[in-house]
Amino acid sequence: MKEIFAEVITIGDEILYGQTLDTNTYWIGQQLNLIGVKIIQKTSIGDTREHILLALAEAEQRADIILITGGLGPTKDDITKKTLAVYFDSPISVNELALKDVEDFFASRGRAMNNLNRMQAELPDKCQIIHNSVGTAPGMWFEKGGKVFVSMPGVPHEMKKMMIEQVLPRFSKVFPLPVIYHKMIKTAGIGESWLSEKIEDWEDNLPPHIRLAYLPDLGQVKLRLTAVGNNRAQLEKDVAAQVQTLLPQVGEYVYGYGDDTLEGTIGNLLLERKKTVATAESCTGGYMAHAITSVPGSSRYFQGGVIPYHNDLKIKVLGVQETTLQQHGAVSEQTVNEMANQVRKLFNADYGLATSGIAGPDGGTDEKPVGTVWIALADGEQTLTHQLSLTKDRTLNIQLTNVGLLNMLRKALMKPLEV
Amino acid sequence: MKEIFAEVITIGDEILYGQTLDTNTYWIGQQLNLIGVKIIQKTSIGDTREHILLALAEAEQRADIILITGGLGPTKDDITKKTLAVYFDSPISVNELALKDVEDFFASRGRAMNNLNRMQAELPDKCQIIHNSVGTAPGMWFEKGGKVFVSMPGVPHEMKKMMIEQVLPRFSKVFPLPVIYHKMIKTAGIGESWLSEKIEDWEDNLPPHIRLAYLPDLGQVKLRLTAVGNNRAQLEKDVAAQVQTLLPQVGEYVYGYGDDTLEGTIGNLLLERKKTVATAESCTGGYMAHAITSVPGSSRYFQGGVIPYHNDLKIKVLGVQETTLQQHGAVSEQTVNEMANQVRKLFNADYGLATSGIAGPDGGTDEKPVGTVWIALADGEQTLTHQLSLTKDRTLNIQLTNVGLLNMLRKALMKPLEV
Repeated sequence: MKEIFAEVITIGDEILYGQTLDTNTYWIGQQLNLIGVKIIQKTSIGDTREHILLALAEAEQRADIILITGGLGPTKDDITKKTLAVYFDSPISVNELALKDVEDFFASRGRAMNNLNRMQAELPDKCQIIHNSVGTAPGMWFEKGGKVFVSMPGVPHEMKKMMIEQVLPRFSKVFPLPVIYHKMIKTAGIGESWLSEKIEDWEDNLPPHIRLAYLPDLGQVKLRLTAVGNNRAQLEKDVAAQVQTLLPQVGEYVYGYGDDTLEGTIGNLLLERKKTVATAESCTGGYMAHAITSVPGSSRYFQGGVIPYHNDLKIKVLGVQETTLQQHGAVSEQTVNEMANQVRKLFNADYGLATSGIAGPDGGTDEKPVGTVWIALADGEQTLTHQLSLTKDRTLNIQLTNVGLLNMLRKALMKPLEV
Repeated sequence: MKEIFAEVITIGDEILYGQTLDTNTYWIGQQLNLIGVKIIQKTSIGDTREHILLALAEAEQRADIILITGGLGPTKDDITKKTLAVYFDSPISVNELALKDVEDFFASRGRAMNNLNRMQAELPDKCQIIHNSVGTAPGMWFEKGGKVFVSMPGVPHEMKKMMIEQVLPRFSKVFPLPVIYHKMIKTAGIGESWLSEKIEDWEDNLPPHIRLAYLPDLGQVKLRLTAVGNNRAQLEKDVAAQVQTLLPQVGEYVYGYGDDTLEGTIGNLLLERKKTVATAESCTGGYMAHAITSVPGSSRYFQGGVIPYHNDLKIKVLGVQETTLQQHGAVSEQTVNEMANQVRKLFNADYGLATSGIAGPDGGTDEKPVGTVWIALADGEQTLTHQLSLTKDRTLNIQLTNVGLLNMLRKALMKPLEV
């Protein structure tokens, strides 16, 4: 089977000058890799007509798929659309489908359209429109001599939605791609090197058509199994067999597969067990409640939360005892213990979660340096507490605390249901 | 003055396939920009000899400086050095300076050298060595027809040290560089096309040495002014003069400059005015408190927050009146009004912020579709409320609500101080 090659072209000075970190082509690289398209080059250029034309010509020589992002805004410095019209020698006119999309976009938001917005519905006649349901710049699909050129906005969430819903499925139809099957196994609560040691034998015995990759992420490690062949059902069976061999060794750390998230898994467990949860956050400052409520439908099990950032509010709003704070301080096992129990009662929840720590960058002492965090989980019968020693980085500390406590809740929920 | 152009070439499959986020060229872009070198292209390719040779030839045609990172490791898949020797038609032999560096490196760490390490001291005869004090792969500096090629390791801290200590200072000696000055103006509360319409005349009257770019972001638009000349003080003055002309037209939307963030600006305004804030979040589920507390030192003005996700908790924890919820529903002007006032009192804060809405993807009705959000700001004397009509996307709705309400607080804080 012929390999299908892709080149990704990013248009915009902000990436060249280091004003925007290019996460788009990172994500695109992953997506193309997953469907078996081989990326041979990424090219980043400015909003300059001649340079765009040159990059397109160079890419056309080496790639089957040319993906272009950026330069589709309504303002004068965005020239991608006009330049594509020149490259494909195509007149530009109002595209009725695109106009309807833009009109719907503004109507749904109750906002007025101006002339610049209307001009976004003008497209080269030789392209097919790629609908943009979350923005005003349509994408464009061109075909030329068996090659496909796709132009999309540089705004990440607009580009991603177009790719997933329209562009990637269409690539699989247009090009003869090999069958690649991926299974992502998601773990929390164990570091990469420990996990790797535990599963070394299993890894060494994988069959040659199945590869393993470790993808460490904030407080989590993802294991990706990639199987290549020509029969999807067989590949799925082969991978499932390997997972069955793996689970007895590390199952306690596995919280899900594929697109599962830790907060989503917890949501499902809470629903299954008809339990609810409430949060009392000090150092995480609302991030944990945000993580839990980022899951659609979380109102069925999330009762609510409180962020008593100061000691007097831990007492007044949450009912923590003044003597506890005086004797042990806000960042202590005793305080998070009370916080978890109090928030559970205040919000009529089955589980109460609490965090208190020194997120940084300032506020540390010799005894309690930046990165010292206490977490607690109360269920009405017992209270689990745990101390974390994290980093000097505020953002990282907030995120790692969240993963640590959510994983503690997951483990509590994983206990067999009482009969 | 002739402009000096640079191209950055990244060699390595891990960036192409989306396994490593490319932060190197982001950083290099910033550094080159600061010394007035204009980056015209970034190219990312795999460890393939033919492709490296092609990328070098293409880059040589358009750039004065060609910066290459990656592919210098001791293993077989790293072929950059050999390929550069082919490109410059140069034999390879042991470089005594490089050998001493590698020996020193291992000696200082008390580790033994192997043959692979020794081979790292072999360099093309036509290059000058760039010392690597923190790793084993030396960098290479080639000159050809007035153009400079620099090859460095892809390991970020090795590359950065070489750039700062050796490469950047040398560029400034070899090339007559112009001075480039950027100013980023950050706005919230106005869309790109409306902003563009408002400042069209101003934009058309910018002097030829100053350019404008629009960089839209979630509910925000950044304006970047770029001035090119030969005197930094003069450029700063020229740009400052343009900003002064701009501000009377759109100053109400401008929340900051450069690295300022909306939550950081609000923090500074609160500190300046000795005011505090508390949050009552329904649809944003803790995200707003997280945004506010992501700023180091926010405990000086953030009192805390509550996330009463259910009606009974809006009554019990926050003290919203039952009749208000019964008559108007949770997503209503009356309810957010009471939430903002109640949280202000409960947390002893100067400002109370409240959100309530249908984040989606489910839960909408004909009267209140997904994306319907009410926000409120109470300061003890008056309460501002505003309805937003957002998207069908849960995450986006949460983020846009946050920007909308933080910007409402910013505007309230921007009022002149009382005398």
